[in-house]
Amino acid sequence: MTRVPLYQQVYDYIVQRISIGEWEEGSKLPSVRILASQLGVHRLTVLKAFQALKDNQYVYVKDKAGYYVKRAAADKEKTSSLMGMEPKIYSYIKNSHLSDIHNKPVRYMFSTSLIDPKLLPNRYLSEHVKEIFNQYPHLLGTYAPVKGDGELIKGFSAYFQKHYNLYIHEESILVTTGAQQGIDIIAKVFVQSHDYVLIDSPTYSAAVDIFRNRGAKLLPIDLTKKGFLLDQVESYMKKYKPKLFYMNPTFHNPTGYTVPTEQRKQLVELAERYHCILVEDDSFHEIYFGKAPPPPIFTYDPCGYVIYLRSFSKYIAPGLRICALLAHPTLIKWLIKGKALADNGTPLLNQKAFLYYLTSERVQRHMEKLRIALQIRKEAMEKALSRSCFTWNSPSGGLNLWVKLQKDINIEQFKIKALEKQISIVPGNICDPAAQNIPYIRLSYSFLNEQEIKEGIQLLNEVYENIQV
Amino acid sequence: MTRVPLYQQVYDYIVQRISIGEWEEGSKLPSVRILASQLGVHRLTVLKAFQALKDNQYVYVKDKAGYYVKRAAADKEKTSSLMGMEPKIYSYIKNSHLSDIHNKPVRYMFSTSLIDPKLLPNRYLSEHVKEIFNQYPHLLGTYAPVKGDGELIKGFSAYFQKHYNLYIHEESILVTTGAQQGIDIIAKVFVQSHDYVLIDSPTYSAAVDIFRNRGAKLLPIDLTKKGFLLDQVESYMKKYKPKLFYMNPTFHNPTGYTVPTEQRKQLVELAERYHCILVEDDSFHEIYFGKAPPPPIFTYDPCGYVIYLRSFSKYIAPGLRICALLAHPTLIKWLIKGKALADNGTPLLNQKAFLYYLTSERVQRHMEKLRIALQIRKEAMEKALSRSCFTWNSPSGGLNLWVKLQKDINIEQFKIKALEKQISIVPGNICDPAAQNIPYIRLSYSFLNEQEIKEGIQLLNEVYENIQV
Repeated sequence: MTRVPLYQQVYDYIVQRISIGEWEEGSKLPSVRILASQLGVHRLTVLKAFQALKDNQYVYVKDKAGYYVKRAAADKEKTSSLMGMEPKIYSYIKNSHLSDIHNKPVRYMFSTSLIDPKLLPNRYLSEHVKEIFNQYPHLLGTYAPVKGDGELIKGFSAYFQKHYNLYIHEESILVTTGAQQGIDIIAKVFVQSHDYVLIDSPTYSAAVDIFRNRGAKLLPIDLTKKGFLLDQVESYMKKYKPKLFYMNPTFHNPTGYTVPTEQRKQLVELAERYHCILVEDDSFHEIYFGKAPPPPIFTYDPCGYVIYLRSFSKYIAPGLRICALLAHPTLIKWLIKGKALADNGTPLLNQKAFLYYLTSERVQRHMEKLRIALQIRKEAMEKALSRSCFTWNSPSGGLNLWVKLQKDINIEQFKIKALEKQISIVPGNICDPAAQNIPYIRLSYSFLNEQEIKEGIQLLNEVYENIQV
Repeated sequence: MTRVPLYQQVYDYIVQRISIGEWEEGSKLPSVRILASQLGVHRLTVLKAFQALKDNQYVYVKDKAGYYVKRAAADKEKTSSLMGMEPKIYSYIKNSHLSDIHNKPVRYMFSTSLIDPKLLPNRYLSEHVKEIFNQYPHLLGTYAPVKGDGELIKGFSAYFQKHYNLYIHEESILVTTGAQQGIDIIAKVFVQSHDYVLIDSPTYSAAVDIFRNRGAKLLPIDLTKKGFLLDQVESYMKKYKPKLFYMNPTFHNPTGYTVPTEQRKQLVELAERYHCILVEDDSFHEIYFGKAPPPPIFTYDPCGYVIYLRSFSKYIAPGLRICALLAHPTLIKWLIKGKALADNGTPLLNQKAFLYYLTSERVQRHMEKLRIALQIRKEAMEKALSRSCFTWNSPSGGLNLWVKLQKDINIEQFKIKALEKQISIVPGNICDPAAQNIPYIRLSYSFLNEQEIKEGIQLLNEVYENIQV
């Protein structure tokens, strides 16, 4: 009865590097001496591991010059018994997945709708975080309450009163670690296997993944420039009795559309009539060019059928990950249980740090500057794009352009060709709840500066022009 | 088409306070003047809301002296249409729930297995966090990679090499926001509705909730002083083909038992034979009194059937919430997708802050002191408990005593009587996967100092002696 022997650990270490492709077929392994020193083990241990690797056809010896990776390695790994454990739950994940696209760092990142860190007031915020420890000496030693830090919750309540003239009771607020976690908790609490869920189409791809992971059946609702087709919404609610309708009605990701004011109340009425909770993901509310968007759907809801997600940290301090989830106390008490399951509460440090930004006047001035900077970047992208035969609706807020292709091309191939030129784009199928190959791509203008946008789009135009129909 | 009118918002605000019991039946509402000033609205707006509350039988006017809460209010709220939305998903949550118990702050918190913040090196850690911002000026403006910060992952790899002589490839490590989130992500990835899951019994109650929430069928495996009944494990694996076996084999919560070394390898062999993943939650590994525990089950696993969760921040900086999840790269790649769904990555600030503690010599010395302090507290609790007719196995690590009651009493009633004396305890049924009323309570000795433990247990003894069989 012993632990895995040391040589076996070295063996596993090497097999893993081979199987993930770090050490490729035909390449030479590091020498016994180097590996032994690197891992801090005896040379004989490494030699024993090499011998076992040879016996098991992972490597071969060439001209006594050293050990080389064999072709068989990758295949062998694929047939290991563990591979059978791959979760069938993810079978819906198609060719490309948003996180896979982001994993490859490229020069022109049009795939990521993050805000350029250079546009954020980093130094100012950092200086403040240092102050927090003087204010709360036991901060790192303390858990936050599951529903969120009391002071931050009060801060959110005051924020909505000040900015929207809304009175949100503290019992209606839950703090989550970003909007993504908010969606995940809502799904955890309200969605069971085989439940129907309405979802705007196109949509935020991670929301699709979250609901699918709960075993939900998704019913896409088309979003156009004019908003939703309310007849379609009503007939689906009537027929399928969906648990939720997930939507991003303001500067929608990816289209940039905003559901018009007159539809907002009608959606609430439908939700009440058919007992379907509306999940209003309002991540881009503050990013408007020109006039502010209509008030959230949440503000038209007297009965508590809207759950409202407002991610804040994105524009200020994405490293903190703070989102306010607002809902009727009857629902909040269940969502707090869901939050307890998810992570037992958002870290206190992050909440205390964020509280300050929420109330700081300087951060409000930052928002004004940020809107202008993003509008300039948007216009730079539109100008560069207009040189090719793309079409899009110019959005009045948000971080993305939803660009229609005029040629009937293979978008997956377009994505790969673009990657070769160091450009990342989001193919439309990722944003489509049904994962159809729709003739769109999403381009984000928030991460790169004007010059980079100009260069990158020019290159993208060339890739597009040269692609075969 | 208008937003909810202001008076209606004030109305909702009051109804919510009534329905959650903040303003009780028969109590007087604040005056129009006070409420108007508090909410920053005109007095006429409040008056209009009061009138509507009166019309809807929420309040009544008494002797022209003011508005009072009516009995009907609570009942009325209960019949609102929203109440029908309560998620059936949680129907398994019985009388008491761990988070409900913790919600009531009492003088003698024996229910919480947190470490007393006074035992943590707060000032020292805080000083360091301030330094981090000098080192990483863009820290707050940056997202971490979904799988975790590269430096922290390297740090974990080095930590396991240094302390356990284990070579963990960086592709085998995922950073999660606490162990709780680790369990949640594992469940998200590997457990579908109707899957079987083995779980140690008694167990960590939140794990039960997480797997139930995924729709799993739980099969409890009894844990005794000698470990698991391996025959039971094998027959369940054979018969039910469970996806996972969740266990906490070292200084187990709540019993304090440690699965003996000779069983560790046998469990791995069973996992391999029956393709069942072992989830080893090793939250208490570092909290030992006397000699260190046997190496993790993970270290006996050559094939990748063990997923290892090591929560670190608990003993050092609980406010940070950092856990290392170790697994075979074949499984990690799916767990990263699960992490992306859960929250898109642990906040970078917390990871950078934690990295330092992981490698700091002073933190290692802190661990030595912490072990001694906890052992003294454990002994204080055992001494005080020995004055009554309780029995328990003295644990050689961890944070809890699992105390057997010698009288056939109603434990729920015991819990309530104890609460009246400002003492919180965890009734055994919360730790039982089948939620049976087993004759045990869990008492944590980690949160209070010796004097408080002595006083609290003395009071608890009295409550116990006086309770009617």
